[in-house]
Amino acid sequence: MNDSVHIGFLLFPNVTQLDLTGPAQVLSRVPQARVHLLWKTVEPVATDVGFSINPTTAFADCPRLDVLCVPGGFGVGALLDDAEVLAFLRRQGAEARYVTSVCNGALLLGAAGLIDGYRSACHWMWRQYLPRFGAIPVAERVVRDRNRLSGGGVTAGIDFGFTLAAELAGADKAKAIQLGLEYDPQPPFDCGSPEKAGASLVAQLRALQAERIRNVEAQIDQAALY
Amino acid sequence: MNDSVHIGFLLFPNVTQLDLTGPAQVLSRVPQARVHLLWKTVEPVATDVGFSINPTTAFADCPRLDVLCVPGGFGVGALLDDAEVLAFLRRQGAEARYVTSVCNGALLLGAAGLIDGYRSACHWMWRQYLPRFGAIPVAERVVRDRNRLSGGGVTAGIDFGFTLAAELAGADKAKAIQLGLEYDPQPPFDCGSPEKAGASLVAQLRALQAERIRNVEAQIDQAALY
Repeated sequence: MNDSVHIGFLLFPNVTQLDLTGPAQVLSRVPQARVHLLWKTVEPVATDVGFSINPTTAFADCPRLDVLCVPGGFGVGALLDDAEVLAFLRRQGAEARYVTSVCNGALLLGAAGLIDGYRSACHWMWRQYLPRFGAIPVAERVVRDRNRLSGGGVTAGIDFGFTLAAELAGADKAKAIQLGLEYDPQPPFDCGSPEKAGASLVAQLRALQAERIRNVEAQIDQAALY
Repeated sequence: MNDSVHIGFLLFPNVTQLDLTGPAQVLSRVPQARVHLLWKTVEPVATDVGFSINPTTAFADCPRLDVLCVPGGFGVGALLDDAEVLAFLRRQGAEARYVTSVCNGALLLGAAGLIDGYRSACHWMWRQYLPRFGAIPVAERVVRDRNRLSGGGVTAGIDFGFTLAAELAGADKAKAIQLGLEYDPQPPFDCGSPEKAGASLVAQLRALQAERIRNVEAQIDQAALY
């Protein structure tokens, strides 16, 4: 008897690694959880922070997943027309119990045709591109629509993780995990959304990342509609 | 001219990976930051979640660090009398601008003699062992004492990261990073500390982890006093 809960995260070059490592930490503590980091091969994958993480499982060896999760990052752009990645997501997404994303990973679920007609969260900077893939952007931290569950930008992946842990294992288990991870956040500043941060900080951040934003926007523009 | 800010995290077997990946995500966005993951060799290191991360820099090749950070996890116990690790921490800790820890990584700083007489945060489950190393336990999420900066359990590393980012680069820059990482937490439950969780949930978690807790307690007991 195999009652593992297979939880698979796509691990790709230039992923925002906390999009993945946050919810993976939470979900790894769900009873019977088996966390897979998935890529084309099991060679090391470079993250946005400069270190690399090793995939646990190549696409070809991936068991049928209970949870498929696509994290985000500037690396998402290059995958929007990657046939191998999109085919893998479609294959797993068709059978997974939960099809999920964190941050602008939602765009990649979109390019795979997996959230057409679904409400979805997304990093605030990328939310407006969801309709290109038929998805309905929602400015909330965690969004559920049928079996699609999505988190907003980066750290929203942790709130997403606890929400999903409660679905998989019940609220009591999720609470024990939360206590173990001491998740009682006390941000030193209150500026974690565009509304709270204000226009000047938003403009400052956009200017800092302007070139990388433009690159991904061009890739979104060129993405084939599945 | 080399104006990099060298930020080094110890990466060791059975680290609680979010202790490290959370603050690394935040601090990697500090201007001129260069994040190092440090271990004896650059071979892959297994984390508590089952995947491995690759060190960027072996101890012998580590530049003088501006920030030394020791994350936690059940793997801390095995290092409390590891001469090579302790020597490395002492050498870097003597010159670093900030000597820091997340979670029960504080115990390892303690074993290296780096927080004797200092106030320190620590994961709530391990806080009571700090006095063994001359440190003063403080039940706060982020604690500063002179150039020692420490975070509480696991996710406290993110709040620690923003606090340190503000020290290194100023509050405005830290706020822009917070907006970029959309750090506006909304935990689905309010049970991230023992006080909020209550005695029954605390007992449940301790029971789940009983064997691993006992192992680390035995290792603390046997740790030589530096």
